[in-house]
Amino acid sequence: MSSIWNKGISVSIFGESHGPAIGVVIDRLPAGEYLDMEQLLTFMARRAPKKDKTSTQRREKDMPNIMSGFFNGKTTGTPLCAFIANDDPHSTDYLKVSKLARPGHADYTGALRYNGFNDPRGGGHFSGRLTAPLCFAGAVAGQILERRGIYTGAHIAEIHKIKDDSFDAITTSREDIIELRKKGFPVLNDAKGKRMKKDIEKAFECGDSVGGIIECISVNVPAGIGSPIFDGLENSIAQLIFGIPAVKGIEFGVGFNCARMLGSENNDEFYVNEQGHVVTRSNNHGGILGGISSGMPITLRVAMKPTPSISQAQSTVDMSKMTEETLKITGRHDPCVVPRAVPCVEAAVNIALLSHMLDYPHF
Amino acid sequence: MSSIWNKGISVSIFGESHGPAIGVVIDRLPAGEYLDMEQLLTFMARRAPKKDKTSTQRREKDMPNIMSGFFNGKTTGTPLCAFIANDDPHSTDYLKVSKLARPGHADYTGALRYNGFNDPRGGGHFSGRLTAPLCFAGAVAGQILERRGIYTGAHIAEIHKIKDDSFDAITTSREDIIELRKKGFPVLNDAKGKRMKKDIEKAFECGDSVGGIIECISVNVPAGIGSPIFDGLENSIAQLIFGIPAVKGIEFGVGFNCARMLGSENNDEFYVNEQGHVVTRSNNHGGILGGISSGMPITLRVAMKPTPSISQAQSTVDMSKMTEETLKITGRHDPCVVPRAVPCVEAAVNIALLSHMLDYPHF
Amino acid sequence: MSSIWNKGISVSIFGESHGPAIGVVIDRLPAGEYLDMEQLLTFMARRAPKKDKTSTQRREKDMPNIMSGFFNGKTTGTPLCAFIANDDPHSTDYLKVSKLARPGHADYTGALRYNGFNDPRGGGHFSGRLTAPLCFAGAVAGQILERRGIYTGAHIAEIHKIKDDSFDAITTSREDIIELRKKGFPVLNDAKGKRMKKDIEKAFECGDSVGGIIECISVNVPAGIGSPIFDGLENSIAQLIFGIPAVKGIEFGVGFNCARMLGSENNDEFYVNEQGHVVTRSNNHGGILGGISSGMPITLRVAMKPTPSISQAQSTVDMSKMTEETLKITGRHDPCVVPRAVPCVEAAVNIALLSHMLDYPHF
Amino acid sequence: MSSIWNKGISVSIFGESHGPAIGVVIDRLPAGEYLDMEQLLTFMARRAPKKDKTSTQRREKDMPNIMSGFFNGKTTGTPLCAFIANDDPHSTDYLKVSKLARPGHADYTGALRYNGFNDPRGGGHFSGRLTAPLCFAGAVAGQILERRGIYTGAHIAEIHKIKDDSFDAITTSREDIIELRKKGFPVLNDAKGKRMKKDIEKAFECGDSVGGIIECISVNVPAGIGSPIFDGLENSIAQLIFGIPAVKGIEFGVGFNCARMLGSENNDEFYVNEQGHVVTRSNNHGGILGGISSGMPITLRVAMKPTPSISQAQSTVDMSKMTEETLKITGRHDPCVVPRAVPCVEAAVNIALLSHMLDYPHF
Repeated sequence: MSSIWNKGISVSIFGESHGPAIGVVIDRLPAGEYLDMEQLLTFMARRAPKKDKTSTQRREKDMPNIMSGFFNGKTTGTPLCAFIANDDPHSTDYLKVSKLARPGHADYTGALRYNGFNDPRGGGHFSGRLTAPLCFAGAVAGQILERRGIYTGAHIAEIHKIKDDSFDAITTSREDIIELRKKGFPVLNDAKGKRMKKDIEKAFECGDSVGGIIECISVNVPAGIGSPIFDGLENSIAQLIFGIPAVKGIEFGVGFNCARMLGSENNDEFYVNEQGHVVTRSNNHGGILGGISSGMPITLRVAMKPTPSISQAQSTVDMSKMTEETLKITGRHDPCVVPRAVPCVEAAVNIALLSHMLDYPHF
Repeated sequence: MSSIWNKGISVSIFGESHGPAIGVVIDRLPAGEYLDMEQLLTFMARRAPKKDKTSTQRREKDMPNIMSGFFNGKTTGTPLCAFIANDDPHSTDYLKVSKLARPGHADYTGALRYNGFNDPRGGGHFSGRLTAPLCFAGAVAGQILERRGIYTGAHIAEIHKIKDDSFDAITTSREDIIELRKKGFPVLNDAKGKRMKKDIEKAFECGDSVGGIIECISVNVPAGIGSPIFDGLENSIAQLIFGIPAVKGIEFGVGFNCARMLGSENNDEFYVNEQGHVVTRSNNHGGILGGISSGMPITLRVAMKPTPSISQAQSTVDMSKMTEETLKITGRHDPCVVPRAVPCVEAAVNIALLSHMLDYPHF
Repeated sequence: MSSIWNKGISVSIFGESHGPAIGVVIDRLPAGEYLDMEQLLTFMARRAPKKDKTSTQRREKDMPNIMSGFFNGKTTGTPLCAFIANDDPHSTDYLKVSKLARPGHADYTGALRYNGFNDPRGGGHFSGRLTAPLCFAGAVAGQILERRGIYTGAHIAEIHKIKDDSFDAITTSREDIIELRKKGFPVLNDAKGKRMKKDIEKAFECGDSVGGIIECISVNVPAGIGSPIFDGLENSIAQLIFGIPAVKGIEFGVGFNCARMLGSENNDEFYVNEQGHVVTRSNNHGGILGGISSGMPITLRVAMKPTPSISQAQSTVDMSKMTEETLKITGRHDPCVVPRAVPCVEAAVNIALLSHMLDYPHF
Repeated sequence: MSSIWNKGISVSIFGESHGPAIGVVIDRLPAGEYLDMEQLLTFMARRAPKKDKTSTQRREKDMPNIMSGFFNGKTTGTPLCAFIANDDPHSTDYLKVSKLARPGHADYTGALRYNGFNDPRGGGHFSGRLTAPLCFAGAVAGQILERRGIYTGAHIAEIHKIKDDSFDAITTSREDIIELRKKGFPVLNDAKGKRMKKDIEKAFECGDSVGGIIECISVNVPAGIGSPIFDGLENSIAQLIFGIPAVKGIEFGVGFNCARMLGSENNDEFYVNEQGHVVTRSNNHGGILGGISSGMPITLRVAMKPTPSISQAQSTVDMSKMTEETLKITGRHDPCVVPRAVPCVEAAVNIALLSHMLDYPHF
């Protein structure tokens, strides 16, 4: 519950944006898994702020220090704790914390939830910065999955009405995914990517922000993973994905478009392929039927709202005085969180897949 | 987990479509809650098959028998078990169970998950019939919430490209919801409803099926309910909603449309209303910020695929022989599950809300 | 939690002593496990009231009806629900339920916990009758474990100061356990058993009751099962054992006696046996070190208080009037619950072991 | 599960004896609770090694650094992480780690559980050092409980056959508990304490160790806390107490002695006291009936085995070569862990009580 995912593996995230440190405890990892630290840092660097106008200017080293559960280069099977120091917080004075609820943020709802005792500086525990430990956990899970052939990749599918191409839900390979990860701005169609970047820069110049959609795919997931009703892959992935701030929707396979189709169009017929495996001719179901993997690529799309921090004047409420005020947010912020959220989506999917793989019936 | 929801309250669903009975155990309900049995049956009747062409002809009484946790008309606080006998299963011979994987169903994935030992008759534990105990649990949760003023209602927002009007995300009242529930075919705009019905009938006549979208709203949810990261209202509602078969997507507030908006358009500004409450001028956020309720109506939309059971010939695989075969599904089935899924969506939301309300910090 | 055990397998127990039925839902059982129904009923019959003076005269058929999760004689892997009708409740009038808190029972604490709304008839959900579904779940788990060679057996180790012999913690075999189960009054030394029976009968004649100790052993548990800190075998077994009413203590291996020993006496030295396995020369540790099985037999002892229902006059409080009254309990009750609790202890241990076996690192 | 307690509050413990740090994440604490840091350190100092012959000579500063969940001197309600650096590990060379399984330790079982990948240095995650974060969590829970009047205290009840006096299970007050905590060697009867200390010193001189029993009491726990079957106070306390290394038994109230009593002796009669509260004349039940608090003091006793690390020669197995060897443990170790385990027992009880208090039905 709360900031804990507790199924298969458990992932307990802690920290506030302007506190001494943030981090994560991952429990029940399989023992003896080699972790490639460079690959881990590369994964996390994809989430870190970029040095251009598409991203916040805050310098975060995001260097995770592993404190436990890791010995001689391998997981021990006991809890793995990673720690990320907050070495660059322009720490606001404790006493002068703003009581103006920023629209689109959790300032107001968080204050009510915790009777005003939560740390409000920089969003506190609600800050997007808390996706760093999520990425760490997802990167660890990803390495364990990749060693078994299972690769997860994502790209920016849409920014403010500008659409990228889509993954091929049948043929996308692990090589395609590896290639995609190398891109600084992860899109399938670089021309579209250029237009997106320009749009983000324009929003930034206007003191505004833009939203977008991320598409994610997992390949080589064996058929038969997942459980019925409340414990299917879709349930778990959705629960984890909504752990990323700014997510407002998720769909699998053709998703909302299935609502516009006939059954005869939407059903994916089964056949036996050349390797003797049961596969489907189309993949409208996104690799999941009844909550359980079909062996086809798992595909999903995630909607992310525009960064709520904009530098335009907004009218809002001072929570301490219950008066209406005008707020102008200054300081560093992302005009679009979508690019940095791409590895977060992969991380959440990795955690879900590994958790379910560990439930797999080997007994 | 698996068929257990275990947070705040727990809901453990059991049964197979053609077994002796299906049912549910609900644990940790607050004690002393009066349950109106007639209202419960009315709720469940909304999920039951209709006596017209829009629905399966299977006659299900769906009479829940309460076996425990209920004394002198009130919940006892100990586990409440409800039991629904399967009194009308046209039970297939145990030995002649089809090995043809029905496209779009969990026949293939379920067989792999359980090494072929699951009960395949009528979809077994994956059958849509298992939403009856879900509705029972949701109806119980709903009565407890309604006694505290919190009402949840839903309507068919779209069937196969035909769109209903939308809830007003600011002004919808509990009276609107009560009115809506009385409708046999729950839409806001009855003219649109007529067109939808015709479309469903047409699909039925063609041996085909159609999908759709359900929109749901919860009003009077107090601000401050929910928790960060993995335990927000969106996480919980999504996890529960994907427990309804055929769901392929969920979005909150403006949902996927937020991806097409600027931050200055999407942010909902706060103000203090005449009653002295903090509210927002628009409700693009769907009543949830940072996983926590804002006090505004909670709005969400759920995408449902067309019923995979269609009577047109489909090509598929015989799982026992690994041969390709042609399948023609005969017998009763819904040409569109969306109308019957409307109370299921409400049920899932009720369970999520009650679970979070019980976490509310009263200590 | 509450009446749910949720780890490895989950066991959700429902029902009240005088309600329509009691039962259990077992989720996440491995699929394809054959269940021998006769053996199941034999297990449950060991818990059922005996037809002599050592036990209550209430006639309980305790016939479990399996409603789900069981197909063609085998577990399906989906939730298995068993249902036991309460066909012999001398149901008290709903309105005339006693408000006198029976000493040693949960009448007073249960009424406070549930604000008086719990079903008080016959102890309601707190009744020893609820151990019938526990035994059912434990018997199912036991069959799955026994098919892998793991046998659990228990005997009455002490009744009211009369002590039975002890299990040999090194050499006890599955054959010894099978033999023990056949006994109507499960003791190792039948002469001691005779004396115990007489003592129980004497207590019955005096309108009194007696307590005792149960010793339990599990053989052939592979080494390496269990997890550190909060999730060791001792933690899990203890949590489950305290689910049996009247249990007031548990100890593993030499238990409380270890407090009187030197380290040099208590430590069990390792050696390699003829089969090439690492074993210990003594078994003071009861087969568990650091929460994890050592491969030696697991041994534990459980203390049970005398049945609180005695027919002697007791002074107590009327909870509705807050007055002191004299209570004389009439009707059926066990003068000693220990003999009937023997299979309950085995059941709890079986559930713990199977839950941990399913966590075993096969990934 | 594993090293996570997840109920009411959650407590996730991480770290290894010779790794960079150990610590704990506590989630779902109520917000706005003032924490007295000096009192916290005093609690932890009671667990720290003493500077005399009764305890290990290892110098542990055990200074917890709070990294999150704490703002302006109060809990925020979001996860509280505390971190304890291992600044004094005489770190063994990574390559020369002993493969001799120390008798009575988890070296052998841990190696099997984790396929040899766990960190074996100083017991790794199985080290008694991991009780430092447990004490931290318990001290935090304790402060929250004490502010509501609930005090938990413990003393050494027995060391190697030398018995202390017992708590009065009726009259013990919070003042008694506060007084007891001030003692360097926590016993009720200091003359007995002196004899115990001498016995421990003698064991130390002989290269041996001794075990003992801890008695614990909680006063002013309101009646009605706890839940039936698997989720009673006894279940939870037992599960947590077995998280302390070396614990081999637990009993509540008269515990194992209840097995020697008649029902008429063991039952505690209720009456209404001068303050108008329902109380019992005796407290054999240890303040818990049916898993739920009765309002009487909660009493329990915990058996701890002698420290397995002794400096006498022991015969054991080299796990890498499967040969029998002679082991002589050198270096720092406690001849008796009982004195340092006293606050650990209090900590475990505090965590259980706070977890259940947060379940209390306020809805």
